[in-house]
Amino acid sequence: MCTKMEPIGFAYTDATEIPKHWTVSDVEGTLVIDKKYLEGLRDIRAGQQIVVVFQFHKSPKFSPEYLRQIPRYSTEKKGVFSICSPVRPNPIGISVLEVLKIKDNILHVKGIDMLNGTPILDIKPNIKKD
Amino acid sequence: MCTKMEPIGFAYTDATEIPKHWTVSDVEGTLVIDKKYLEGLRDIRAGQQIVVVFQFHKSPKFSPEYLRQIPRYSTEKKGVFSICSPVRPNPIGISVLEVLKIKDNILHVKGIDMLNGTPILDIKPNIKKD
Repeated sequence: MCTKMEPIGFAYTDATEIPKHWTVSDVEGTLVIDKKYLEGLRDIRAGQQIVVVFQFHKSPKFSPEYLRQIPRYSTEKKGVFSICSPVRPNPIGISVLEVLKIKDNILHVKGIDMLNGTPILDIKPNIKKD
Repeated sequence: MCTKMEPIGFAYTDATEIPKHWTVSDVEGTLVIDKKYLEGLRDIRAGQQIVVVFQFHKSPKFSPEYLRQIPRYSTEKKGVFSICSPVRPNPIGISVLEVLKIKDNILHVKGIDMLNGTPILDIKPNIKKD
């Protein structure tokens, strides 16, 4: 059983150094979403936080050797489901970004931790528990 | 361009009423992960919060009529990227669950807002911004 995902758009940034995680990123960039989804973007506002689901498109194919990896902040191996490594069974990444501006199908965002050209799979509102 | 995703496991719950969102759910259940990923689960501990990425496997295929939908809490249509509807261009859901217990490849969790039998695509640590 498997399911196919198709990008709704792509992330772009001029930054040459990409932070390891959105929580420590001030990098700005744009999300260019396919115009066929324009109506779905209409309620997103500047100043809002959005959850962006994306594809780690440059990662090698997952194999058992990646079940335990040394994360950047450590010298010891950890299980892949306890770290944010881009090498995962399904190459899905999640970042919470701040919307700086939205114009038609282009979102200017801050907090980028994705490579230039990263395929975007979904955008969701950032809902937190009270 | 598209990418194939394969479940790493499935979510199970006996609950007959599934809350609309993890932020309002006390529902308990289990995540049964494929044993081939056991080593990747080894650092997950009881008491921890995990981000679970899953597939809305019962959703109808997305079409333009779903670009704007009336969310459960409203009477007005909103763009699909501003709501948590399971009917989305890529049927990806995200929930933050509490780990009650972990034994081998089975995680007992609280906060379930998924249907019984939901395919799990990924598990990540729940890292928040300071």
